[in-house]
Amino acid sequence: MPPSFVRGDSAMLGFHATPRERSEMARFGVLGTGSVGRTLASKLVSLGHDVMMGSRQAGNEQAVEWAKAAGQLASEGTFADAAAFGETVVNATAGGASLDALAAAGVENLAGKVLIDISNPLDFSRGMPPSLVVCNTDSLGEQIQRAFPETSVVKALNTVNADIMVDPSIVPGSHTIFLCGDDAGAKAMVADLLQSFGWPADDVMDLGELAAARGMEMYLPLWLRLYGAVGTARLNVKVVVGG
Amino acid sequence: MPPSFVRGDSAMLGFHATPRERSEMARFGVLGTGSVGRTLASKLVSLGHDVMMGSRQAGNEQAVEWAKAAGQLASEGTFADAAAFGETVVNATAGGASLDALAAAGVENLAGKVLIDISNPLDFSRGMPPSLVVCNTDSLGEQIQRAFPETSVVKALNTVNADIMVDPSIVPGSHTIFLCGDDAGAKAMVADLLQSFGWPADDVMDLGELAAARGMEMYLPLWLRLYGAVGTARLNVKVVVGG
Repeated sequence: MPPSFVRGDSAMLGFHATPRERSEMARFGVLGTGSVGRTLASKLVSLGHDVMMGSRQAGNEQAVEWAKAAGQLASEGTFADAAAFGETVVNATAGGASLDALAAAGVENLAGKVLIDISNPLDFSRGMPPSLVVCNTDSLGEQIQRAFPETSVVKALNTVNADIMVDPSIVPGSHTIFLCGDDAGAKAMVADLLQSFGWPADDVMDLGELAAARGMEMYLPLWLRLYGAVGTARLNVKVVVGG
Repeated sequence: MPPSFVRGDSAMLGFHATPRERSEMARFGVLGTGSVGRTLASKLVSLGHDVMMGSRQAGNEQAVEWAKAAGQLASEGTFADAAAFGETVVNATAGGASLDALAAAGVENLAGKVLIDISNPLDFSRGMPPSLVVCNTDSLGEQIQRAFPETSVVKALNTVNADIMVDPSIVPGSHTIFLCGDDAGAKAMVADLLQSFGWPADDVMDLGELAAARGMEMYLPLWLRLYGAVGTARLNVKVVVGG
């Protein structure tokens, strides 16, 4: 059963607050020590969750530094340590390295769990702007799901910058965050988590089955052009609908 | 030199109005007789432009019917007839057939002109939802530009349904329409044309060089999922930016 996220309480918990109801908080493994992983992990800690950051080797400098700064709910270890620790696991590794990182995390450590895949399969090897490692008739989200059939993969958050993921209010007005996956319960849990991050329920859009990850990942080349046009990564799109 | 579009006047011209300044109106060739081509062609006629609709063979039933209904500014012919007729040419053919249609239109009939490419390279042969014929490291817009180096290709309008293209007000509030291309003058002309269609200048976003067509075309798989999620094709996105 996926853990539940307490919406009302989470808003009352400051970064250093002591959770009042630990039984309703969850343990997360966050795979990846880059700015996306650190930002997500810090947000989860600020909401009162226990978080282990995973990297290729335990003692990763960025992970140790993060855990030290993030306080007593934070720890670090290998990809396998973090995956085993988490009731829910977040893939915040670079898309091109995600399948290897998840293989290191271990099928057994991810079985029966929700994996929130926020990665983008960007390929920088062919110059700028990056292309995608996989697209069109497949997606990284689907590749991960096929490699970990006992895990419920939910694609989410990959369409915005890390600071917007955990604080949508830095972009004014309402704007849309997408998720998709094949497990309705897992998607409902992730939708709750997004709301605990500050996303209004009306701005969380379920795009359906996990194959919709193709669309969510293929949006990246447009996102990169939007970034070039507006001159800041603090951008998002709002889906608007006519009558 | 690209023709100019008179913004103030165009808003005053009803569907059956007689243009007051024909010298400021332009001749358009619209390639394609589907709903997108007919909708665009009708809008251009309503703004006082002369429009020839092109299809594989002159006398195409849908083209003849359209020209009859659209009035004295409307005519129809082959792809080559329409391309030769137009000072500006619109590619509204199905993306998978666009290169063939444009080859039939003829390099010489398109040389020195602006070609507005509104097509999407959708591939329905592998089932639903469609995939793309070309993507990631290339785009249909770029393929067309390479095949017609004497023509200024501007990618535009492919990210919305035809009825929104020519009447953005059917989606409430402000929302964004994209264009890109390698010829700044051609893009300025197309931006003016979009404004004559009703797009506010602030909602027309220039994404830069024609290679941005990759992003505009790769948005389609996401658009198709949005369509599934909201249940209507009368949708668009508004780009929102934080401080």
